[in-house]
Amino acid sequence: MKELLKLFARIIQRTNINLRETGFDVKPYVNNLINLDHMTKFYAFYGITPSHPLSFEFLHSSLAGSYFLGKIRTTNSILYKSDIRGDELKQKGDVVHYKGFDIELPKDEMIDIEDSILIKTLVHNFSHDPETLEKFFIRSTVSTQYANIHGSPTDGSFVGPFATIDLTTMTDCVIGAFSYVQASEISHLNVAPGTIWVRSPDVFNFWYRYPAEQLAHYIYFEAGKPPQGLFMDFVEDRKEAFQRIFDVVNIEHPVSVPHNASLDRFAVVKAKTHISENVLVSQRAFLQNAWLGKGANAQENCYIINSRLEGNNVTAHGAKIVEAHLGHQVFIGFNSFLRGRADARLTIGQDSVIMPHTIIDINKPLNIPPGSLVWGLINDQASLEENSVSLKEFSKVRSFFSKGRMFFEGNGAAFVGVFRDRIQHILEANGALYNGVKNKGHAQKNQNISFNTIQPYPNGDFSGLYPTILIKP
Amino acid sequence: MKELLKLFARIIQRTNINLRETGFDVKPYVNNLINLDHMTKFYAFYGITPSHPLSFEFLHSSLAGSYFLGKIRTTNSILYKSDIRGDELKQKGDVVHYKGFDIELPKDEMIDIEDSILIKTLVHNFSHDPETLEKFFIRSTVSTQYANIHGSPTDGSFVGPFATIDLTTMTDCVIGAFSYVQASEISHLNVAPGTIWVRSPDVFNFWYRYPAEQLAHYIYFEAGKPPQGLFMDFVEDRKEAFQRIFDVVNIEHPVSVPHNASLDRFAVVKAKTHISENVLVSQRAFLQNAWLGKGANAQENCYIINSRLEGNNVTAHGAKIVEAHLGHQVFIGFNSFLRGRADARLTIGQDSVIMPHTIIDINKPLNIPPGSLVWGLINDQASLEENSVSLKEFSKVRSFFSKGRMFFEGNGAAFVGVFRDRIQHILEANGALYNGVKNKGHAQKNQNISFNTIQPYPNGDFSGLYPTILIKP
Repeated sequence: MKELLKLFARIIQRTNINLRETGFDVKPYVNNLINLDHMTKFYAFYGITPSHPLSFEFLHSSLAGSYFLGKIRTTNSILYKSDIRGDELKQKGDVVHYKGFDIELPKDEMIDIEDSILIKTLVHNFSHDPETLEKFFIRSTVSTQYANIHGSPTDGSFVGPFATIDLTTMTDCVIGAFSYVQASEISHLNVAPGTIWVRSPDVFNFWYRYPAEQLAHYIYFEAGKPPQGLFMDFVEDRKEAFQRIFDVVNIEHPVSVPHNASLDRFAVVKAKTHISENVLVSQRAFLQNAWLGKGANAQENCYIINSRLEGNNVTAHGAKIVEAHLGHQVFIGFNSFLRGRADARLTIGQDSVIMPHTIIDINKPLNIPPGSLVWGLINDQASLEENSVSLKEFSKVRSFFSKGRMFFEGNGAAFVGVFRDRIQHILEANGALYNGVKNKGHAQKNQNISFNTIQPYPNGDFSGLYPTILIKP
Repeated sequence: MKELLKLFARIIQRTNINLRETGFDVKPYVNNLINLDHMTKFYAFYGITPSHPLSFEFLHSSLAGSYFLGKIRTTNSILYKSDIRGDELKQKGDVVHYKGFDIELPKDEMIDIEDSILIKTLVHNFSHDPETLEKFFIRSTVSTQYANIHGSPTDGSFVGPFATIDLTTMTDCVIGAFSYVQASEISHLNVAPGTIWVRSPDVFNFWYRYPAEQLAHYIYFEAGKPPQGLFMDFVEDRKEAFQRIFDVVNIEHPVSVPHNASLDRFAVVKAKTHISENVLVSQRAFLQNAWLGKGANAQENCYIINSRLEGNNVTAHGAKIVEAHLGHQVFIGFNSFLRGRADARLTIGQDSVIMPHTIIDINKPLNIPPGSLVWGLINDQASLEENSVSLKEFSKVRSFFSKGRMFFEGNGAAFVGVFRDRIQHILEANGALYNGVKNKGHAQKNQNISFNTIQPYPNGDFSGLYPTILIKP
């Protein structure tokens, strides 16, 4: 345990040095965040397949319960139940197009995590930073519960619970709870909780911030205490179902899976769930009475309960869908919380885009028309009208648009185009469009993964720390 | 699969080249021995503790279901459900005394397995060969079901089912089924099945050979067929009980374990079993209604059923004890098969030595007096008398002794002394003599081991082969 405590102190110090300009002290936020005793209780694991790149280096780190796929290096880091997915890493020889430049990669990309603490954080996808195409780094960074670090190299930053940093290179920043930032490159910023910010420099800028008092009901995080609120209660209430999944070596899910779909062995599947062709269900997804149409995907940490998804739906990492009916190709962004009731269902018409970090929490039935763009906090018909617009109308925006607490500058068609392209990419990458010959994606490639478990020293000075582990092809 | 088949062919070829002088062709013996499809079905695993040395290198190998502890390197090898235990490896700086020489080790010892096939083979302990003190090698060797390679470097050899090669350096030899060889150094020998041979050059030579037709009832192995006989049936009948043990991540055994004893997580424990202080139960041991007295040990692959062991008993690797009552400090050697019946119990008096590979299979009660030395095939009182002698009497032998099919040349007291010393060493190493302060052994050190699983590529050309895995402290 001695060495684990030293490592913990060392990471806090390094992160605080980076954050010295913001005056933010990481320490009180992490002191209750991590139970060091738990670091010997859970095994970490990594996947091996012929379809994914393979290279792992775990050095002087603690990795309890974490999951690794691809090419990953962690050094002097503490990862607890974090998923590090490198299955879309760029490979040697790939050419990246960036604003007129064609950049060829001289070597394979690797995820490199150093001097960092990641708690229940999802790390995924490749670095979009043209300056570090071969290395997706996370350095001197502390990231907390259910945060997503998605295609975003970070250095010297703190990421609050349920926050997402997406396709953004971030240096010396503090990202508040439940904030979503997709802003290309940021540094020395302190982003308040509940900020939804999507920026493409010189093209558009989307901005929304949750009212603090209302957000606190869902997620609240203050120094010296663990995160609180409905989001935490929601995941805690369903924690036990995952226990069984991790306690057995081979698992039989109570559902049939078509030959071209894949259901991860570490997903929870409860009764009355239906999985159609080309469906991808990722690890730590939770399905209960969930009907997933052809090409729908259920990404890591998402929950789909008493709901029907018609097909080609994207349920992004951490999204929750309860008592809802989603039309064809509805997109649900990261960590969104959509909660209908048995007697007050939520209906979302086809081709709608629910922005990342949207909260829809209703007591009366609510119907979102097809082709809507939806964001922010919605409790009823009135707040829906304030927090949505048709994609068609939004595409006509040329310079400025505002509705309720949302502000948009720039080209609406470009914004909509970026989302459309991205949804298309996600469906392609996940195998939703596989026709038996072409467009193989994760749904087909992930069917056959071997999982290897790794554990730390069980006692002694190095208790909780892992030995040096190197896995190569 | 392609690469696994190539590896298989390559090892066979290498072993046959070594064995060319004996005219022995390994191929027909292994063709039915190994189901290559099984090589993707079972996970291999290794243990991590602060009490054992740590270093693993797995290169171009297939390792299904095998267990590793210590410092081990396997290259171009196929291991199936084999246990490789390096927990008594010599360490850098250790001084080995050998016939007047004091040899200091310049580096840690490592088990090195190259170009070999080991099926359900137990590899244990350090090399006693003064020429290779840092390397316990197994090269171009094929070893079959329930064989033991114990402190015995081997090169270019074939080891039959239930055979044991003990404290012997072996080059280009064929060891028949159920043979036990402890002979310091041997080469270019073809040892017939059922040979029990214990030799200390210039000191003594013990020799017994089972009658072929009677041995065939217990174990019979011919080219082109899997091993047959009662031994195989015995283990096959109990195979299912192990399935459950390997299917769950954490296991609760239905028995209480004193704080100074250890019960391996991969042992099978059935009802009415009792574990006393300082007891060691190793992985793949099978206990059913077994009463283990203070300091008794149950080593790998042993079975203890409806039996009581009074204390400080050694049940060596692969020994089977059914319906028996063993007095204090009774030693049961490797792969011995002792079978009483519910209405015909076997009783063995204290301090007796049951030689490795002894078969006692009775239909009437049998009572072996305290202080006996017992070997060979015993079915009743008459055969006991033919195959035993009191240790006291045997110690008086100066040059020659023979009884039944057993022949002994040399010094009886030296022979008895070697056994006594070895039993003492085993009890010490296993922690039987721990007094709360001194004499800690495996029973105390093995209590807290982390097990990490590893698996091969699940499909594709490399299906069944493992990636390169390096684990260092």
